[in-house]
Amino acid sequence: MVEYPYLVRDNGLWWLTEDEGSTMKVSYAVDAILFDQRSPLQHVMVVHSLDFGAMLVLDGVVQTTAFDGFIYNEMISHIPLRLHSAPRRVLIIGGGDLGAAREVCKYASVERVDLVEIDELVVRACRQYLPEVSGPVDDARLHCHYRDGVEFVRQAERSYDVILVDSSDPVGPAQQLFSRDFYASIGKALKGDGIMVCQSQSPLFHQSVLRTTYGHVSQLFATAALYTAVVPSYPGGFWSFTLGSKQPLHTWEAARDLPSDTQYVTEAISQRCFVLPNFLEQLLGS
Amino acid sequence: MVEYPYLVRDNGLWWLTEDEGSTMKVSYAVDAILFDQRSPLQHVMVVHSLDFGAMLVLDGVVQTTAFDGFIYNEMISHIPLRLHSAPRRVLIIGGGDLGAAREVCKYASVERVDLVEIDELVVRACRQYLPEVSGPVDDARLHCHYRDGVEFVRQAERSYDVILVDSSDPVGPAQQLFSRDFYASIGKALKGDGIMVCQSQSPLFHQSVLRTTYGHVSQLFATAALYTAVVPSYPGGFWSFTLGSKQPLHTWEAARDLPSDTQYVTEAISQRCFVLPNFLEQLLGS
Repeated sequence: MVEYPYLVRDNGLWWLTEDEGSTMKVSYAVDAILFDQRSPLQHVMVVHSLDFGAMLVLDGVVQTTAFDGFIYNEMISHIPLRLHSAPRRVLIIGGGDLGAAREVCKYASVERVDLVEIDELVVRACRQYLPEVSGPVDDARLHCHYRDGVEFVRQAERSYDVILVDSSDPVGPAQQLFSRDFYASIGKALKGDGIMVCQSQSPLFHQSVLRTTYGHVSQLFATAALYTAVVPSYPGGFWSFTLGSKQPLHTWEAARDLPSDTQYVTEAISQRCFVLPNFLEQLLGS
Repeated sequence: MVEYPYLVRDNGLWWLTEDEGSTMKVSYAVDAILFDQRSPLQHVMVVHSLDFGAMLVLDGVVQTTAFDGFIYNEMISHIPLRLHSAPRRVLIIGGGDLGAAREVCKYASVERVDLVEIDELVVRACRQYLPEVSGPVDDARLHCHYRDGVEFVRQAERSYDVILVDSSDPVGPAQQLFSRDFYASIGKALKGDGIMVCQSQSPLFHQSVLRTTYGHVSQLFATAALYTAVVPSYPGGFWSFTLGSKQPLHTWEAARDLPSDTQYVTEAISQRCFVLPNFLEQLLGS
């Protein structure tokens, strides 16, 4: 029988085991391996799991799934886009599964989306085997660039209305995407009324990353705010996003309507998501 | 070396593996077994895990932890208690970890708390080894009854202001706690302006339980509402509660102040927790 990295055969099924640190493990039963290739950067797999459907797995870590990917992708894109009065040019750093790009393309005002994903193989795998997330993204407004996001942003100047940082965990190359310098470049790459969002990890398990990220954004932007959502396939199921606006934002009320076909986000959710549990308010305040 | 059910020794640590269904498994590294006894009803353990601290484990399934127990316990107790104008008598069905009882006892208006837990061993184990959850509950208002909750409720009549159903999963004896008859008894056991809450499982993985529970409560109470919270140690991290009020509730604004020492619940959280994602609104509407 063929052998796959990260997968162990047991009882007629494959099991993919994610090591969170090495003190907690989550294992998913897998009945089909849809894609399995190594790029120069990482090991890329799409597997079909019984609980989450198709899952994108990079170096053994689940990135997004057919079952719950919509939650993360709607939350990282619609929250900033609905707050911007006229989002025309959008930049996505990372986001190789195309899930965020798909949501961004739902806005008629958007004229161009630049997506900068370092690994082309991720995009190819998702386009073919994860249509539940990446959808039929053949939109002529979407331009994919297979290069380093940090450099791309450094070269852009006052070019974008909205920038989404859809990074993986802050290990390896993605570490730079959590640095103060990077957020400073993001600020420069945005137009005067630009808004950025990044994923800022788990409010429970990665409090120091979250606090540092929020600190950088607070120093560099007129308004900084944390919002949260549930992402079942991420450790603990609770995830945070940090939003920065170059102009002060005085309300979470929408500048524009949401698309009509969202599964998670509603008008109420997109305001409520900024309401934080007591322990998080205290963490940010301290 | 001693052997324990549900625990496997590997690499100098114990590993507790929870089978969710049998298509997803979560394993916790455990460095100490604090309590391990079998009652006539079930196997009761308190273990110390590296990520979640002390955990109550019944028949191999994690029930509550020192790390995140406060979220569930605050959400099942403060949401109904702050909506009631004068909660004096409170009934808790289940809740043997005493976490909900501890929160209820924070209200000065409360004169008596009856806690009906079928298994005395759970209460003993938690009092001794899970003080982070059960706290120093030596409150003279708290009365523990070690008997069947369904029978207890059936014999009570117009006795309680608030009833909390803090049950385990709907398998085995707990199954009755999800039946229509049981919610009808709850309605009778409440005074005319009484409010009940039950945990109604995961909005993602147990949609049929959730919908059935919400259906029963809608039929039997003047106002029914679903609210959600994040519970990292439950599968998917996303959890639901169903609230029923015998008198129509026209607002989620508080009838009384929250205690000052909550870690999760704030005034804003206790109103916004009723805001549901689109897919859940559609599930309840259909």
